[in-house]
Amino acid sequence: MSEPEAPITRARGRSNRRAVAGGHEAAAVLAGVELRIRPYDLLSEEGLLAIEDAAAVILEEIGIEFREDPESLDLWRSAGAVVQGELVRFPRGVLGPILKTAPSTFTQHARNPARTLKIGGQNVVFAPAYGPPFVRDLDGGRRYGTLVDFQNFVKLAYSIPWLHHSGGTVCEPVDIPVNKRHLDMVLAHLRYSDKPFMGSVTSVERAEDSIEMARIVFGREFVDQNCVILANINANSPLVFDATMTGALKVYARANQGTVIVPFILGGAMGPVTTPGAIAQSFAETMVGCALTQLVRPGAPTIFGNFLSSTDLRTGSPTFGTPEPALGSLVVGQLARRLGLPLRCSGAFTSSKVADGQAMMESAVAMQAAVQCGANFILHSAGWLEGGLTMGYEKLILDADFCSALHVYMAGLSVNPNQLALEAFREVGPGKHFFGCAHTIANYRTAFWESEVADNNSFEQWRDAGEKDALLRANARWKKLLAEYEAPPLDPAVDNELADFCARKKSAQSDQWY
Amino acid sequence: MSEPEAPITRARGRSNRRAVAGGHEAAAVLAGVELRIRPYDLLSEEGLLAIEDAAAVILEEIGIEFREDPESLDLWRSAGAVVQGELVRFPRGVLGPILKTAPSTFTQHARNPARTLKIGGQNVVFAPAYGPPFVRDLDGGRRYGTLVDFQNFVKLAYSIPWLHHSGGTVCEPVDIPVNKRHLDMVLAHLRYSDKPFMGSVTSVERAEDSIEMARIVFGREFVDQNCVILANINANSPLVFDATMTGALKVYARANQGTVIVPFILGGAMGPVTTPGAIAQSFAETMVGCALTQLVRPGAPTIFGNFLSSTDLRTGSPTFGTPEPALGSLVVGQLARRLGLPLRCSGAFTSSKVADGQAMMESAVAMQAAVQCGANFILHSAGWLEGGLTMGYEKLILDADFCSALHVYMAGLSVNPNQLALEAFREVGPGKHFFGCAHTIANYRTAFWESEVADNNSFEQWRDAGEKDALLRANARWKKLLAEYEAPPLDPAVDNELADFCARKKSAQSDQWY
Repeated sequence: MSEPEAPITRARGRSNRRAVAGGHEAAAVLAGVELRIRPYDLLSEEGLLAIEDAAAVILEEIGIEFREDPESLDLWRSAGAVVQGELVRFPRGVLGPILKTAPSTFTQHARNPARTLKIGGQNVVFAPAYGPPFVRDLDGGRRYGTLVDFQNFVKLAYSIPWLHHSGGTVCEPVDIPVNKRHLDMVLAHLRYSDKPFMGSVTSVERAEDSIEMARIVFGREFVDQNCVILANINANSPLVFDATMTGALKVYARANQGTVIVPFILGGAMGPVTTPGAIAQSFAETMVGCALTQLVRPGAPTIFGNFLSSTDLRTGSPTFGTPEPALGSLVVGQLARRLGLPLRCSGAFTSSKVADGQAMMESAVAMQAAVQCGANFILHSAGWLEGGLTMGYEKLILDADFCSALHVYMAGLSVNPNQLALEAFREVGPGKHFFGCAHTIANYRTAFWESEVADNNSFEQWRDAGEKDALLRANARWKKLLAEYEAPPLDPAVDNELADFCARKKSAQSDQWY
Repeated sequence: MSEPEAPITRARGRSNRRAVAGGHEAAAVLAGVELRIRPYDLLSEEGLLAIEDAAAVILEEIGIEFREDPESLDLWRSAGAVVQGELVRFPRGVLGPILKTAPSTFTQHARNPARTLKIGGQNVVFAPAYGPPFVRDLDGGRRYGTLVDFQNFVKLAYSIPWLHHSGGTVCEPVDIPVNKRHLDMVLAHLRYSDKPFMGSVTSVERAEDSIEMARIVFGREFVDQNCVILANINANSPLVFDATMTGALKVYARANQGTVIVPFILGGAMGPVTTPGAIAQSFAETMVGCALTQLVRPGAPTIFGNFLSSTDLRTGSPTFGTPEPALGSLVVGQLARRLGLPLRCSGAFTSSKVADGQAMMESAVAMQAAVQCGANFILHSAGWLEGGLTMGYEKLILDADFCSALHVYMAGLSVNPNQLALEAFREVGPGKHFFGCAHTIANYRTAFWESEVADNNSFEQWRDAGEKDALLRANARWKKLLAEYEAPPLDPAVDNELADFCARKKSAQSDQWY
């Protein structure tokens, strides 16, 4: 018996669970998850106005540098900003109207339409970690990432229904030349997954190659009118955008593709040590980046990004999953909602080198803040270790399990007669148990979240099964997922055209290793 | 330079941190922590009314059994409830006026007045786990708890400033006879700590002994007028109170001491599988228990308790740190605030057997819900493993570190000119770092939470230091705390009188081992 009032996401999750049990996990399709509980509003109107005002002072008085990019300086000059050399200052009232053309929600199409994602509103998308040069697993320890690792992570993210997005640089394939690896990365996303993905941003040409490969799959006209690829554009905080980043930004925006504009602020290093100041800075940098996309092509999809973390000020080491950035994320969420832009937040952060108690405690804090701040696109949802330097196989599995739990948390509670269970109390009465009662039988399938990794058995069962901790269980799970992986179908003609494109581009230039 | 606008709790936390650095951790005094951010209100008024109404139906129509306790039945009869045999039904309107005499906040006195706690309002108290028969550490594995373990945990909770309360049965000292161990437990709390604590509830006599020992320390008259000891009173969910629990409840209430009234509901076993129904049941059971304390002695302090968890319905195993009880806690908090009673919530829950990634992920979820629901007394804040069957030495340390982080999280953000840091931006400008700027130097001491266990070093530093994971670091930490432990001063005459009392009580009866 099904439960008609169960939230859609959970019901779909449960049918996925049954698919999992049958060994066909990748058949499960979750096109994001809806946040049905309200975001946590930390600051009052007064506090938000003070931060918005501080951002306005930063923009008007201090300004933001656009380095080695005369085109962007021209765009800003025409838009009413004050340009002196490479420094751009923004009088109050300049950015607001520019940002109005940015869509509050947009669609990122997947090559499998069932996996196409709505980005914005109450929809939430989990994507794996981005950027680590190293990988780690229990068997091999820590080592440089390779293309095989990259492909493995694409396959794993495809196999896990709680990750809705294939991500981008899930690890750096360090065995491939720097100037060619973007081709193999985009090919892997398109070949080994049918979820939406992210393209290269490390040069104009690589950005163009990424979009060109998307055009092979989706068609040139479709790509001009629809978002099929996202690009992660980092500010060089504090208060700088460099030509590599704005170059890629302009390529994606001009092609009507999605950009994620993200400061990178470790308080005390690239921003002040006080969180409200870091938020004001983040807000200023992101608004400017998002606005630049609209100067390039009004209406191009862009995501308001957020990456705040703290620093151990005795050593200078970055810290992650700490309380200050969790509070900061809640405020950035409030600010993004006032602007009406989709919000990116991170992620399963930790500075731990392994997926131990520190890692999962820090990741749970950061992820819960990301969800509670109302983020629409949560990059680094799974796999992140060691401040982002390492992508962990076991960490990916443990984080994805937390993403699964968050699907249920985000659904909130439905209060209705079946959920209130008065019939169960009438049947069971004082002092008896509910295991076999009619209400339990009618509801047990959808009642409780089921972890794919947790051990809830008795001590004796656990001991007799070899005292496996979470790391060992996660190790077994990613191996099982890879062993069972089956590639989603891709038209062989398209696959050939992609491969030809990559081969042609690779043979046209010599290898560069830095 | 100090930061005048820093929240009190954090400022005190930082001065503690300095004390820690000096090796005198126990000198640090935190009499609870204030929740300066608003609780998370999950349900609308309509949802809350529906749950309150369901609870009223349970109380009026189904009722609650009071087993083998004619005195309580008489109290209920006189108060206007409908008593048939041992079943008590509560017409609407009966409980509300009775509960009005319960204080919305009260003070639990510590023998060291600096550690006296306010319970209620925005104050939050962290207490260690309660009840585990087993203990675990990395060296000795899992074993039955002993009095030495009990004393160790009292000493550790005393040494950790983020635990404000000494707790109660921090583990069962299984090497001491069942009918005598309460004496050793209360003696340990009074001798090895000067934080507030909890007494025995396993029989009327043991409850009376606990209070009598408190009278030796605080004086008979003081104890009659002030709360110096708390008792944890469990309902035998569903919908039953047994004579052991109501017997202890009456002893503590009559002596004007604090009771914590707590259902114990694992959905699917002692309650329905649907969370709103479990909340309604919890609400009904707790209101009745709290009201009984007021029938015994109007004005006696009582805490509205909450213990919801879920079940793996395939195996019947309890599960902890899952999303459903986290949502449930948020709602119980809303209901308790509407009643105007102090709220107890749990805790650093997990079903994991060891303090691994599963344990800390689950514990972080449950603890964050406890804080966000507005709980005033958070039992099981540290140490809990294996569904409460085991008290973990390393788990205690990792959980306490999370409690430390929560102190900062609960303080929220202050938005003011210093925190907004415009002077820092003016000094640093685009593209430079904030490490040495005047604003950083003025603020770095209070800027960021510092973990006592996390490793934020580089991979190379961590590797060269032996690749210690969180468990190993926690192991070193509890050993250091025990090695540095110094007992708080206790008047030798009082100590002797306590010891005499215990010796006299022990010699008056033979050992009972079950």
